[in-house]
Amino acid sequence: MSTTTRLSSLGELTIDVYDTTLRDGAQQEGMNLSVADKLAIASLLDELGVGYIEGGWPGAIPKDTEFFARAAKELDLRHARLAAFGSTCKAGTTPHDDPQVRALVDSEAPVVTIVAKSDIRHVERALRTSAEENLRMITDTVRYLREQGREVILDAEHFFDGYRFDRGYALSAVTAALEAGAEVAVLCDTNGGMLPGWVHEIVADVRTQVDGRLGIHAHNDTGCAVANSLAAVEAGARHVQGTVNGYGERTGNADLVTVVANLELKHGVRTLAGDGLRESSRLSHAISEITNISPYGRQPYVGASAFAHKAGLHASAIRVDPDLYQHIDPVAVGNDMRMLVSEMAGRASIELKGRELGIDLSGRPDVLGRVTERVKAAEAQGYTFDAADASFELVLREELDGTRPRYFTVESWRAMVQTLSQDISLTQAEATVKLHTGRGRVVCTGEGNGPVNALDHALRQALVDVYPELEDFELIDFKVRILDTQSGTDATTRVLIETSDGVHSWSTVGVGPDIIEASWEALVDSVVYGLLRRDVSPR
Amino acid sequence: MSTTTRLSSLGELTIDVYDTTLRDGAQQEGMNLSVADKLAIASLLDELGVGYIEGGWPGAIPKDTEFFARAAKELDLRHARLAAFGSTCKAGTTPHDDPQVRALVDSEAPVVTIVAKSDIRHVERALRTSAEENLRMITDTVRYLREQGREVILDAEHFFDGYRFDRGYALSAVTAALEAGAEVAVLCDTNGGMLPGWVHEIVADVRTQVDGRLGIHAHNDTGCAVANSLAAVEAGARHVQGTVNGYGERTGNADLVTVVANLELKHGVRTLAGDGLRESSRLSHAISEITNISPYGRQPYVGASAFAHKAGLHASAIRVDPDLYQHIDPVAVGNDMRMLVSEMAGRASIELKGRELGIDLSGRPDVLGRVTERVKAAEAQGYTFDAADASFELVLREELDGTRPRYFTVESWRAMVQTLSQDISLTQAEATVKLHTGRGRVVCTGEGNGPVNALDHALRQALVDVYPELEDFELIDFKVRILDTQSGTDATTRVLIETSDGVHSWSTVGVGPDIIEASWEALVDSVVYGLLRRDVSPR
Repeated sequence: MSTTTRLSSLGELTIDVYDTTLRDGAQQEGMNLSVADKLAIASLLDELGVGYIEGGWPGAIPKDTEFFARAAKELDLRHARLAAFGSTCKAGTTPHDDPQVRALVDSEAPVVTIVAKSDIRHVERALRTSAEENLRMITDTVRYLREQGREVILDAEHFFDGYRFDRGYALSAVTAALEAGAEVAVLCDTNGGMLPGWVHEIVADVRTQVDGRLGIHAHNDTGCAVANSLAAVEAGARHVQGTVNGYGERTGNADLVTVVANLELKHGVRTLAGDGLRESSRLSHAISEITNISPYGRQPYVGASAFAHKAGLHASAIRVDPDLYQHIDPVAVGNDMRMLVSEMAGRASIELKGRELGIDLSGRPDVLGRVTERVKAAEAQGYTFDAADASFELVLREELDGTRPRYFTVESWRAMVQTLSQDISLTQAEATVKLHTGRGRVVCTGEGNGPVNALDHALRQALVDVYPELEDFELIDFKVRILDTQSGTDATTRVLIETSDGVHSWSTVGVGPDIIEASWEALVDSVVYGLLRRDVSPR
Repeated sequence: MSTTTRLSSLGELTIDVYDTTLRDGAQQEGMNLSVADKLAIASLLDELGVGYIEGGWPGAIPKDTEFFARAAKELDLRHARLAAFGSTCKAGTTPHDDPQVRALVDSEAPVVTIVAKSDIRHVERALRTSAEENLRMITDTVRYLREQGREVILDAEHFFDGYRFDRGYALSAVTAALEAGAEVAVLCDTNGGMLPGWVHEIVADVRTQVDGRLGIHAHNDTGCAVANSLAAVEAGARHVQGTVNGYGERTGNADLVTVVANLELKHGVRTLAGDGLRESSRLSHAISEITNISPYGRQPYVGASAFAHKAGLHASAIRVDPDLYQHIDPVAVGNDMRMLVSEMAGRASIELKGRELGIDLSGRPDVLGRVTERVKAAEAQGYTFDAADASFELVLREELDGTRPRYFTVESWRAMVQTLSQDISLTQAEATVKLHTGRGRVVCTGEGNGPVNALDHALRQALVDVYPELEDFELIDFKVRILDTQSGTDATTRVLIETSDGVHSWSTVGVGPDIIEASWEALVDSVVYGLLRRDVSPR
């Protein structure tokens, strides 16, 4: 009846993937990697299966010199080749006499990537040398490094701006490098201002003008880094640079995992060695643990929300036919489909959510009905279970078992903050909780740098003798939202808390007329859930 | 010497910008907007200058029904037309008899956007009706709404997947809508799986097959939402949908500000009414304060890092010749170049903001310098003045006059919350403040439904005898953001408070290790500012 339309495809190709997380990615605001961090990230990048790992600029940055020294001894790379990044020799010098170039050789990296000016304005105004001397520096440096037995890659800095301003000069810089023996000339959109149509036009033109392999290095200043990388490949580039999680200066570099996933899963192009793409969600998150930059939930393919569905309307259809609502199978990138329990939720999405938590509700319409009612009523009060799986699971288990485990009961609690003047250093917060466990009554006071922190400390201290499992628990995230803001401080407050036991983390929610009460509810849920998931019995 | 290369340009065009932050954007994980939030965002969107604001789905979502009712009375839109989103009539019904369609008419929105299936598989498997009946539903619903005097927009859901599977059917759905009188047929990449080259191919083909205006609705699942929107425009679409900050389900929708900035600044295409693009950084941040979703620093154009340069080697070159290192002048989007190591920011925008507040700093470089330093230091601590003009004005006046008016001094304050059991109705909050005015010492205790509310009451009661002006003041909004979420409740808290005197409203900010302290600072600022703007002298 119907005919599938075939769209243009890149077909049988192999693209080199060049990662610069450790060099250009490290330019990101707030990122500060130690040598140990860099070694750990390099191992993960190798697991991903990239072809090249650019480690840094030995000679210019002492930490990077050390990285290459230790990498040679400590790293056992299966797939990737290590690349040292540096500059051409200086104007008026030979590569042999330029200490910066010698440091690249001394790094013992098998690949050396040389950045060179290809925009005549940068040659004249930033480098303050002549057009001819810049070409001489490129030729001599590439030739010298080839003589030292290195694979040489040329990064043509500001290439696209240079091309627009003076096409002939930009092309001559690329030609000089390729003729001197560079393996590939990488066209860099250093300012990130390009759009995909323009990248395509320019790369296609360069292809007809020079003889050799071309690469692309894109930044995300127009929100098009991924698309610009694809446009370059479509126009003939065979080498793609980028960073994991799109780290980088300003708006970041092209997100390498997204580029690779698009090339592999959409175009069927071979990019990575091994089966790394299927591990890419885990690897991306592991790298963000090392960089200590919070993962971006909306990140394509690997983000926590990338396959999360909220619309209640579609839940029943998704259950039957997930392929109708997902552009790829999330397993291909090691991610998971998730159903969000939201105000638009119906029974179908709650059943699906239960299945995700390993609880089959399909034969229990009574439980499903009660849970749906409770979730709806709770959401009307301001609760949200989108981001509080643990609280949702407590509701679900309570309706399933008829009760929740009574690890402790609360007699009372109080929290207090006081300041003796406007001087913040004199502010004190203190909280007291009175609880009962099977082993008797406990009264405990905690201090903290705020009332919630003090309550958290008091609650843990009160329970840790009876439940030593609590020693592993740590509160790792805390979010507050004021609902119905028309009434100022009379409004309802919602608190979301994330707790970790070092291996897993879970989120709980609390709602109340004030932040302290809402936090208390979320804190109690987080302790109960943490004990429950370890199968601890009430003591 | 050199010849500038001209790249392809879209030339003289006008593109309709359709914002769906309040409908599709609200599908984002963790987002939960109140009616008041939606009204506030709609005003900001109108300031940005978009052509359409899609407000929600009246009839299906009670909050959205209320939004349209209140919008008709409370919103005074200068540029945008309000659009109600809904579905075609159900299979086997007429639009007139379908309560969902009637609710769209009852919303009184001048524009109605109808989502319809254009993928035959969705018609058969999700809608469970026939190909012909689906086309009948589209035709009848569009025609009915046109008869009711509405502008009708068709969102062709899953259009691209539908086209690939069965081109003829997808085209017939679009044709049915346009022939029945729809103003524009929007081709939706609902699953977000498209790449720009494919979007271009398909939109170009549709252009040749149907007669009427086409639009694009893109999601970011391949990291190409912006590029896909541009590709559609290049192929002939004249209507672009998206959301501010790229909010939306999964990986989000096309980021409208990025799309618009690319079209306006790169292609010279007219998209927004007025001069909204130059305000887009402020508007984007203001909207993220309302959604309470942390702004993404690497966001193109408007992100905090978008024009941040790690100084190093190029610092002086950047200062002399910023155009060599920036793809656009950040002023065009109301952003600023920032140097991350060397100091070089702010003065121009602070001067501008001063002018906005009626304070001319152009002849006072000393004050400008001191304010810039204070703002920078405060922002490093977590303060934000984007959304706290009153606190900023207090800083500015303090530096201008050398002091701030001493309406009162604080001896001490304390706040306390306690619960006698888990029963929320037994929770009590109480606060005591000890202040000095020119008329002596005051000790006052306030109660409230939370510690901040209690402090607010205590502070007003303590001062109202001396400053009866306070009787008019009311706290109307209260927002909390936890900064540096890595450390849980040990993190820094930022509070934004909005106060009204019935005529004007003003916003103040406080930052501290806990919410109570941060709130206290913002409360004190709000009282001081309120008295100052009424020209009250200290008593």
